[in-house]
Amino acid sequence: MALIVQKYGGTSVGNLECIRHVAAKILTAKMAGHQVVVVVSAMSGETDRLMALAQQFSERPNPRELDVLLSTGEQATIALLSMVLIDNGCPARSYTGGQVCIRTDSTHNKARILGVSVAGILADLAQGTVVVVAGFQGVDNKGNITTLGRGGSDTTAVALAASLQADECQIYTDVDGVYTADPKMVPFAKRMAHVTFEEMNELASQGAKVMQIRAVEFAAKHRVPVRVLSTFIDGPGTLITHDEYNLAHAEHSLVSGIAYSRDEIKFALRGLPDKPGIAAKILGPLSDVHIEVDMIVQTQSLDYKADLTFLVHKRDLHEARQLVSPVLYDLNSSDLEISDSIAKVSLVGSGLRSHPKIASALFQILGNGGINIQLISTSEIKVSVVIDDKYLVQSLTMLHEAFNLGKEPKKVGIHS
Amino acid sequence: MALIVQKYGGTSVGNLECIRHVAAKILTAKMAGHQVVVVVSAMSGETDRLMALAQQFSERPNPRELDVLLSTGEQATIALLSMVLIDNGCPARSYTGGQVCIRTDSTHNKARILGVSVAGILADLAQGTVVVVAGFQGVDNKGNITTLGRGGSDTTAVALAASLQADECQIYTDVDGVYTADPKMVPFAKRMAHVTFEEMNELASQGAKVMQIRAVEFAAKHRVPVRVLSTFIDGPGTLITHDEYNLAHAEHSLVSGIAYSRDEIKFALRGLPDKPGIAAKILGPLSDVHIEVDMIVQTQSLDYKADLTFLVHKRDLHEARQLVSPVLYDLNSSDLEISDSIAKVSLVGSGLRSHPKIASALFQILGNGGINIQLISTSEIKVSVVIDDKYLVQSLTMLHEAFNLGKEPKKVGIHS
Repeated sequence: MALIVQKYGGTSVGNLECIRHVAAKILTAKMAGHQVVVVVSAMSGETDRLMALAQQFSERPNPRELDVLLSTGEQATIALLSMVLIDNGCPARSYTGGQVCIRTDSTHNKARILGVSVAGILADLAQGTVVVVAGFQGVDNKGNITTLGRGGSDTTAVALAASLQADECQIYTDVDGVYTADPKMVPFAKRMAHVTFEEMNELASQGAKVMQIRAVEFAAKHRVPVRVLSTFIDGPGTLITHDEYNLAHAEHSLVSGIAYSRDEIKFALRGLPDKPGIAAKILGPLSDVHIEVDMIVQTQSLDYKADLTFLVHKRDLHEARQLVSPVLYDLNSSDLEISDSIAKVSLVGSGLRSHPKIASALFQILGNGGINIQLISTSEIKVSVVIDDKYLVQSLTMLHEAFNLGKEPKKVGIHS
Repeated sequence: MALIVQKYGGTSVGNLECIRHVAAKILTAKMAGHQVVVVVSAMSGETDRLMALAQQFSERPNPRELDVLLSTGEQATIALLSMVLIDNGCPARSYTGGQVCIRTDSTHNKARILGVSVAGILADLAQGTVVVVAGFQGVDNKGNITTLGRGGSDTTAVALAASLQADECQIYTDVDGVYTADPKMVPFAKRMAHVTFEEMNELASQGAKVMQIRAVEFAAKHRVPVRVLSTFIDGPGTLITHDEYNLAHAEHSLVSGIAYSRDEIKFALRGLPDKPGIAAKILGPLSDVHIEVDMIVQTQSLDYKADLTFLVHKRDLHEARQLVSPVLYDLNSSDLEISDSIAKVSLVGSGLRSHPKIASALFQILGNGGINIQLISTSEIKVSVVIDDKYLVQSLTMLHEAFNLGKEPKKVGIHS
């Protein structure tokens, strides 16, 4: 008997048929003797519907009240899934984030989980009840409803798994695992059986879209074994664990996978005074409101001026521009270029740590393909470049082939 | 400065335009120096939508989970109204039933309020914040979400007004007060300026549909002055207070108003054994599940048999039949007639107490009109009769005229 936390995203619970399918999967795990905690998102499209409703009522909805509204999405799903489970003879109980005491900080719309009280859940599990928890939401220490931001249900699942000391946290999604590259872009991409948290962290942050980055970090920190699986296709998925667990595997490939992101925009600030504290002055206000900034590059120009370039998520464009503009005004600089026709491509792999030549190989491959690199950023196990969006598919295909990541191409005609 | 609780029903908050109008009304009260607590229902149609969703997923949805689902309706309204208030410069905070600690018993779908904690609300009010509370919902002592049944938002408002010792509880609805009869059925019906709790209790229970009966009882018990007003038409509405408050008024009219209900069905059970405990045996199971039974009439027949007739609400038909049938089987009786083409008409007035002849006048008027009376039930200040539904309008018009309740008929052409 194992204790398993299963998380089903919006497309997995998108309609009655899907929810019945999910209920059947939960029943299968229960029949196999496992204790099951289920975390669900809002039905697909529901969060967008609620967001549109909010924007109909208020151009910039009050963040606290927006969370009260958005949190109804998952609340509906937990009730409907529990009804279906109970109708199928499986004892089940739903809990909102507040009811199960998912405590967060008070950063509305982007709250962070501080802790989870699991006494009630353990009591339910001991009685053979399936516990169905609303993902994406929590309460702060004053009882205000908070939400964790898009993809937050992954974090809910991992936080519950950590607090419950679950044997496995299963993230069910619409892909059957983590791939060497996005299979939609690179047809020969291969599912990885194992991946380390470190690699997954980089893959997620670079846009692999399988799992939310904060959830991966949380899982790594609390050593929760995570498995990414398809709701609709049976299979082993991809297991994400600590390095030592699959060291043998990691040694074999220098590059584990290639990720990309089209969700970011580039802010290029030119002609800034070249003196200490400038970057902090510009980027501080963004981090104060939890806007994530990536690929920060600062350079000096000849005339004692500095250029600063960075990426933010497209959804933060409006807010980021509003925060950056007054600082530029203070600095007597107005040269701000915002570009949204960019893509970020990243090579990820534990092997990069010991093989620095991989980065230069990357630059050379893109150069040979006539693709200009706008920005470069490296970490221990990752190299990221920003290129013109129109070269994205070409660069992914070239790199995937050059680093030999794919499965054997099938004969034309069999390939679906 | 007064402390006012305002309640707005589903049609009052049915769309963006309505919610803006409600926000303007709240602001007006705030500008006048009052402290305002607002209770809102789900947007009109939303509870029906959620109920249909539940029934799509489960033929007989689990009551606990149904409450989790239904309670999202008001949660959306409180968030949207608070957003609009804040956008208009009025500090506002929304609270779900659970957040504001509206404690109820555990009778899901029909819970009763046990108490309200108002410390948090008083703190908000002291800071000039408008408090927006979700009606219709609460939590039991284990933190499970409960709902109060249809119209429960009225009870939420009255319970809050009682605990806050509010100066007035204003029930905003789509009519501008309590009428001597339903103006849709009787064009000359007149708005009453005052009505006693006792009269309102009878009028509400007989289907005046202005305010939920449990709310009227609650208000009477806790001596909360209630005013029924229109959201859309300015005016003084109808004030509901204790008898002594408007004794002068009550003395003037023997009959205050005429109410009717078309929402009930008649159960007629014939040929029951005529022995003690039969009524309890049949009606006990109904009261156990909180099905309200009205107009209970038991009669003896010659052959040591008894007949039992009573009304239940149409929505309880299925459940009531399921509960009654096995008892009839036990009693070797199968003569159950269910009739839904009935209407209940009631005369209400404090004057009835001292004028018993009013009841016989009622019977005579209907008899003269050729209208057969199926059942009669009387209380201290009310006489109710059940008639064939097709005679409803005729009987209302006849009684309204006979008891001289109407305003002066306007000339044809001016009357809208």
